[in-house]
Amino acid sequence: MIDAARLQARIESLGAIGALPGGGVCRLALTPADKAGRDWLIAQMESLGLAVAIDPIGNIFGTRPARPGTTADAPHVMIGSHIDTVATGGLYDGALGVLAGLEVVAALNDAGTETDLPVTVAAFTNEEGARFAPDMLGSLVFVGGLSLEEALEIRGIDGTRLGDELAAIGHAGTGAGPSAIAAYVELHIEQGPILEDEGLQIGVVEGVQGISWTEVTFSGASAHAGTTPLRLRADAGLAAGRTACGVRDIITAIGPGQLGTVGAVTLSPNLVNVVAERAVMTVDLRNPDDAALIEAEAALATLIAAAAAEANVTATTRSLARFDPVDFAPELVDAVEAEAQALGLTTRRMFSGAGHDAQMIARIAPATMIFVPSQKGISHNIREYTPPEDLARGTAVLHALIARLSTPKQGA
Amino acid sequence: MIDAARLQARIESLGAIGALPGGGVCRLALTPADKAGRDWLIAQMESLGLAVAIDPIGNIFGTRPARPGTTADAPHVMIGSHIDTVATGGLYDGALGVLAGLEVVAALNDAGTETDLPVTVAAFTNEEGARFAPDMLGSLVFVGGLSLEEALEIRGIDGTRLGDELAAIGHAGTGAGPSAIAAYVELHIEQGPILEDEGLQIGVVEGVQGISWTEVTFSGASAHAGTTPLRLRADAGLAAGRTACGVRDIITAIGPGQLGTVGAVTLSPNLVNVVAERAVMTVDLRNPDDAALIEAEAALATLIAAAAAEANVTATTRSLARFDPVDFAPELVDAVEAEAQALGLTTRRMFSGAGHDAQMIARIAPATMIFVPSQKGISHNIREYTPPEDLARGTAVLHALIARLSTPKQGA
Repeated sequence: MIDAARLQARIESLGAIGALPGGGVCRLALTPADKAGRDWLIAQMESLGLAVAIDPIGNIFGTRPARPGTTADAPHVMIGSHIDTVATGGLYDGALGVLAGLEVVAALNDAGTETDLPVTVAAFTNEEGARFAPDMLGSLVFVGGLSLEEALEIRGIDGTRLGDELAAIGHAGTGAGPSAIAAYVELHIEQGPILEDEGLQIGVVEGVQGISWTEVTFSGASAHAGTTPLRLRADAGLAAGRTACGVRDIITAIGPGQLGTVGAVTLSPNLVNVVAERAVMTVDLRNPDDAALIEAEAALATLIAAAAAEANVTATTRSLARFDPVDFAPELVDAVEAEAQALGLTTRRMFSGAGHDAQMIARIAPATMIFVPSQKGISHNIREYTPPEDLARGTAVLHALIARLSTPKQGA
Repeated sequence: MIDAARLQARIESLGAIGALPGGGVCRLALTPADKAGRDWLIAQMESLGLAVAIDPIGNIFGTRPARPGTTADAPHVMIGSHIDTVATGGLYDGALGVLAGLEVVAALNDAGTETDLPVTVAAFTNEEGARFAPDMLGSLVFVGGLSLEEALEIRGIDGTRLGDELAAIGHAGTGAGPSAIAAYVELHIEQGPILEDEGLQIGVVEGVQGISWTEVTFSGASAHAGTTPLRLRADAGLAAGRTACGVRDIITAIGPGQLGTVGAVTLSPNLVNVVAERAVMTVDLRNPDDAALIEAEAALATLIAAAAAEANVTATTRSLARFDPVDFAPELVDAVEAEAQALGLTTRRMFSGAGHDAQMIARIAPATMIFVPSQKGISHNIREYTPPEDLARGTAVLHALIARLSTPKQGA
C-alpha cells in the first residue's frame, strides 16, 4: 500500500529546494537549485535501494531489480517525469511523477514484492524548456530524437551552453537508461480545470493534443482616424479583430476537441486616433485528432485571407510550432482506467493539453499518463496546488498498475 | 491677385525655423523654436504694415485697418490658424492658414484696396496640444472657454508651467484681439485623403465632426490555452476581438458620415499559449451629426456588454474625450463654395475630421474653413505635403472671400 504522508513529505522536501520567498519554487534546469534537487533525488533513490545511473544528457534513472534469476536484458517498467521547474513554478508539475515513482518503489519494498521485470524511476533533464529550448529535451535525446552533440551545444536564455552547465553541476553522466522498456507510465497534475470542474478523481490520458501555433502579421497603412474614410483605409487592427473573432467561430464549427486561442495581439502605433498600420497576432490551435487540426489550420488560412482582403491589408504568416497529436498505447490506457475503477475512483478519459516526457517515450515504447486534478487549473504558477488526497489517489493507481505490469504472469 | 511664389517662399521661410534634419519641422508651443517662428511672423506682419497685438495667452493679431473714417468699433474680418507644430510635423498644418492670411493682406496692399472692415490675421497659441493640453488652447481662451488664469497654470508634458514658458519667450502680451468679429475664415490642409482621391481642388467645410473616445477594459482570467475548455474560459482577448469587429459593423449600419476606429488594443499577459486575462482597447467614434453619434455610442455600449457576456468577462468603460459636432455658419459655407466655383475650381462639401481653431471662434462669431488637398492624406508627419498650386488655389478663394466680406456693400 502506498503511504500518502510519506509521499507528501517528499513533495514538501523537494519543494523546499529552490523555494521562492512568496511560495512556489524555482529550479530552472541545470542551475544550482536544480543540482540540489537532483542530488537530493539521487540520495532518496539510493536510500530505497535503487541502482542509480545518469546518462550523458543528465537524465537520472533509479532501478529496482527484478527477482533473482531474471535475464539481464529483460525490459524495464518505467515511471518518469522531471524535477526542473519554470521560473515561478509550483511543487507538483513534474515532481509528482518522479516522487510517486519513489513511493511505488517504497510500497513494493515494504511488501517485500519481487517483480518479474525491473522497475525504473526516471527524472528527465530540462522538461520545461524555460531555460533551454526545446522543452522535453532530456527525453527527446533519450529516445534518439535529438543527438547528444546537438543538445550539448544549445544556448540558454542566459547565453550559457547547455553542455557547460550540465558539466558544471556534475550531472553529465556516463551511465545509460534501460535499453528496453516494457511500459512507461507518467503521473502528472492535469494543469487544467476539467477534473475539478466535473468533480472527478482520475484523468485517464489517451494522448497529447496536436499543437499548431501561427504568427500572423497584417500590414496596412497608418491613417488619421478622423479624416480617413473607410474605403481609403488599410486597417491592420480590423484584420486582427476579424481574425480573433473568426478563430472562435472556427473552433465552434469544428466542435468538441478543438481548442483555439488568440493570446497575443500587438498593434502599431497603438494610438486611439490612428488607424493601425501593423498588427502582429498569434493563433494557438490544438486538437487530439490530426485530421481535424489540419482542417482548422486550413480554415484559419482562409480566414486570414478574407480578413486581409476586407481590411485592404497584406498578411504574412509564420509557423511558430507544429506538433502532431500523440496517441498513447490503448492497452495501457485501458489498464489505467481498469485499475482506477477497481480502486473505486471516478475517472474520465481525456487528452493532455500540454506537452510531457511521456509523448517522447511513446516513440519507442508503450506509454501513457495518469492525471490528478489541479486546483482551478492553475499551473506554471506558485499557486499551483493539488490536495494530498488527490496525490495519493493518483499514486495508488500508479502503484496498482506498475505492480501488474512488472509481474505480467500474476496479472494474466 | 495673390502671388503663389511669394506664399511658397513664406511657407519655406517659416518651415526653416525649427526644421528637422530629415525634413519636417518641430516647433512645439512656447519652445525657443516657436519663439523664433513667432518673432519671424511678427516681423512679416510689420513689414506688411499690420498693427501687431499680442494678448496675455500669446495669441498674435496683425490688423490691417479699414478705410479712413470707419468707426473704431467696426467688427473685424479675421483670418487665422496657428504656427505651433507637433514634434515631427510638416510645413503646412496651421502655417498655411496664417501665411495665406499674410498673402491676402499683401494682395490687398498691392492693389491699394481699402476695405470697409479691418482685416486681422491671427496666430493662436498651442493649437496642437502636443506640449500643453488641451489643444486649441489659445483660441479657447480667446473666446472665453477657459480662463487665462487656469490656462497659465497648465503643466506641459515636460513638467513646465505654461505661464512661465510663455513669459520666458517674451510672448505674454498686454494687447488684445478684436472685440467684435464679423467673420472668421481658416484655410487649412485637409489632413485626409478625400480631395486627392476624388481629384477635387477645394474642400468647402461645413463643420467639425463630433468626437467620442471610449477606453474599454475587459477583465477575465488567464488560463492555459491547451488545457482550458472554452466553457471554463474568461477570455478578455475574445471580448476585445468581438468589440473590434462590432465597431466596424456599427459604423457600416449607421452609414455615411459615421467613422469608427479601434486603434489601440493591449492584451495581458500577451502570450501565444495563455488566454488573456485583461484587454484594454480604445474606440474612436466620429460623426458630424450629434444624434447619429449618440446612436453609435449606444450601439457601442450594447456591443461591449454582449462581448463581455459571450467571453465571460467583466467590462468597464471610461470616456477619454467627447466633443459635440460644430456647424459652421451656413452663409459663410455658401460663400466659400460660391467664390471657389467663380474661380473655376472644383469643390466638395465636407466635414473636418480633426479639431481646428475655427471651431472655437465659431462659438462667438460666424466662422468657416477652406480645405486644400493633403498628399496621401498624410499629416502630423514630416512627409506632410501639398503642392504649391493647391496652396495658391486655396489662398485665391480665401482672398476673394475676404475681399467680399471686408467690403460688404461692394459685394451686395
